[in-house]
Amino acid sequence: MEPVNIKKLAQLLNLSIATVSKALRDSYDISKETKEKVVALANELNYQPNPHASSLRKHKSKTIAVIIPEIANNYFTLAINGIESVAQEKGYHVLIYLTHEDYKREVAFARELFNGRVDGALISVAGTTTDYTHFKNLRDKGLPIVFFDRVCDEIDTLKVTTDDFESSYLATKHLIGQGCKKITHFAISSKLSIGNKRKRGYLQAMADHHLPVSDSLIVECINDDDRDIEMIEELFRREKPDGIFAAVERYAMDGYEVCSRLNLRIPQDVKVLSFSNLRIASFLNPSLTTITQPAFDIGKEAAARLLNNLEKKHAPLANESIVFKSSLIQRASTSSI
Amino acid sequence: MEPVNIKKLAQLLNLSIATVSKALRDSYDISKETKEKVVALANELNYQPNPHASSLRKHKSKTIAVIIPEIANNYFTLAINGIESVAQEKGYHVLIYLTHEDYKREVAFARELFNGRVDGALISVAGTTTDYTHFKNLRDKGLPIVFFDRVCDEIDTLKVTTDDFESSYLATKHLIGQGCKKITHFAISSKLSIGNKRKRGYLQAMADHHLPVSDSLIVECINDDDRDIEMIEELFRREKPDGIFAAVERYAMDGYEVCSRLNLRIPQDVKVLSFSNLRIASFLNPSLTTITQPAFDIGKEAAARLLNNLEKKHAPLANESIVFKSSLIQRASTSSI
Repeated sequence: MEPVNIKKLAQLLNLSIATVSKALRDSYDISKETKEKVVALANELNYQPNPHASSLRKHKSKTIAVIIPEIANNYFTLAINGIESVAQEKGYHVLIYLTHEDYKREVAFARELFNGRVDGALISVAGTTTDYTHFKNLRDKGLPIVFFDRVCDEIDTLKVTTDDFESSYLATKHLIGQGCKKITHFAISSKLSIGNKRKRGYLQAMADHHLPVSDSLIVECINDDDRDIEMIEELFRREKPDGIFAAVERYAMDGYEVCSRLNLRIPQDVKVLSFSNLRIASFLNPSLTTITQPAFDIGKEAAARLLNNLEKKHAPLANESIVFKSSLIQRASTSSI
Repeated sequence: MEPVNIKKLAQLLNLSIATVSKALRDSYDISKETKEKVVALANELNYQPNPHASSLRKHKSKTIAVIIPEIANNYFTLAINGIESVAQEKGYHVLIYLTHEDYKREVAFARELFNGRVDGALISVAGTTTDYTHFKNLRDKGLPIVFFDRVCDEIDTLKVTTDDFESSYLATKHLIGQGCKKITHFAISSKLSIGNKRKRGYLQAMADHHLPVSDSLIVECINDDDRDIEMIEELFRREKPDGIFAAVERYAMDGYEVCSRLNLRIPQDVKVLSFSNLRIASFLNPSLTTITQPAFDIGKEAAARLLNNLEKKHAPLANESIVFKSSLIQRASTSSI
């Protein structure tokens, strides 16, 4: 008997080629009855799938992409460790793509993922990205994606984050409780989901405690240390703040640098609090009060959900937000002398 | 006129197919005369290369792999930035593979690179690797590879490192000059080229200054902080050293932790010096004296040489060692009170 192909099966069953193809893949959107009918005939006629096409269809690269802005950041380092802990257990390889906060690189990477190189992607959005077409295209093509930390609200899929607004509110309230009256915020790009939420948490806490808020108290840092330090120094000379709430640990270190240059003592003259996953926060001079995110767990959860989805024949990922709680760890940089 | 293929060209020219193929690729090991003869006939007979085969042959993935042990390490973070600065300029993408010091992962990654996914690789060897067959296979297959930092002496290719022996000698001598009489070494895996050189530099300096050396003064750390701290604490209780020379910044932080637990003051009771690219070394309590490697430049040079080679039609990379000098930056952790 001559082997049949999918087209022949479709003709004989009076179904579309797409339906037969999906039925053979055990796709979630084909009824049980149709699947049984297709499989029965395929067996009867000794249907043999084209091995190359089958490998493509089954998404067998056993590789996932992680697209992140940078690695000089303890948050992402820990998140990657969390991702890899799951990937290793399930036999997946992890490829890391660094956007360096550059929208164009992000678009180029997304384009690379079209070719079956990876089975799915974990993404943390670049700080300069405002158009999300490249992610929408990936999603429309059926590549499962999960956002973590810096998410994209416009795209329906799973998102794993921390409680950015609440943590920032708590951080600002802590500084106020320790005696700060004029708190500056070193902000991350306001184009980012987390940039916005962290700034709003700060603004809300200031307003609730009847403290002055003004754009001149906020520096939107750009991840160029020399330039950031310059902007922060300018703000200090102009505003003379008594508290710093930094959205990212790198900016807190810029703050330490500026205080050292201006002979301001931490915490006597200026108190400092920062989002940070720095392992050695307690060995800083002075030790740094932090909002510490469960970065490892966030990476682990995002990867576990993605890999679980890959094994489930591609039912679309639910448009769901998983929020992990961060913790405030008080150290010397905010102590009220 | 019917188009000809390579086989036909070879017959007509009385050359081997391999020679014609190489001549058409402008390979370095075909003479200029032969190349001209082949190209002339190919043009005359309107030879059209098979586009798919040609793309494979020309190594057009425009992607390079970076295989490294970890990223929770400021050295590798900076080296990657150096690599990417060159890759971006030349239009290459960079894929990062993390071995987590695991030989098996390294072998699996090397196998993945066989399939044309990347045009070349920059490699820093895992701490558990003792067999280099997987790298030799890559090399024999013609994939250009450059080793950096943790190199593999058994394989003839370009290697970019720092002056590990000299820097370690200098570091140990500095501790001795500041008054240390019993210096412990927190070593990186002795299976690694750099592990060996750093240990030898320490041993030589101790011997040259007639100070005691013994295996019981050396801890070979395993990158598990809890376990490493335990081993270090045991050594401190047993040996009561007055100086620490750490091969990696992570171990220096383990040393700070142990000194804090045992109520030992740095630098009064114990002086600490470490290889480190920590940006905030000066904000530590106390600030940390470091051997600082030009990590960005090392990554940049390794990538520049690799990409330069890719553009030069694959003349093999010379078996050459490029050595960058590191610098000792003195801070409070080694000051002689």
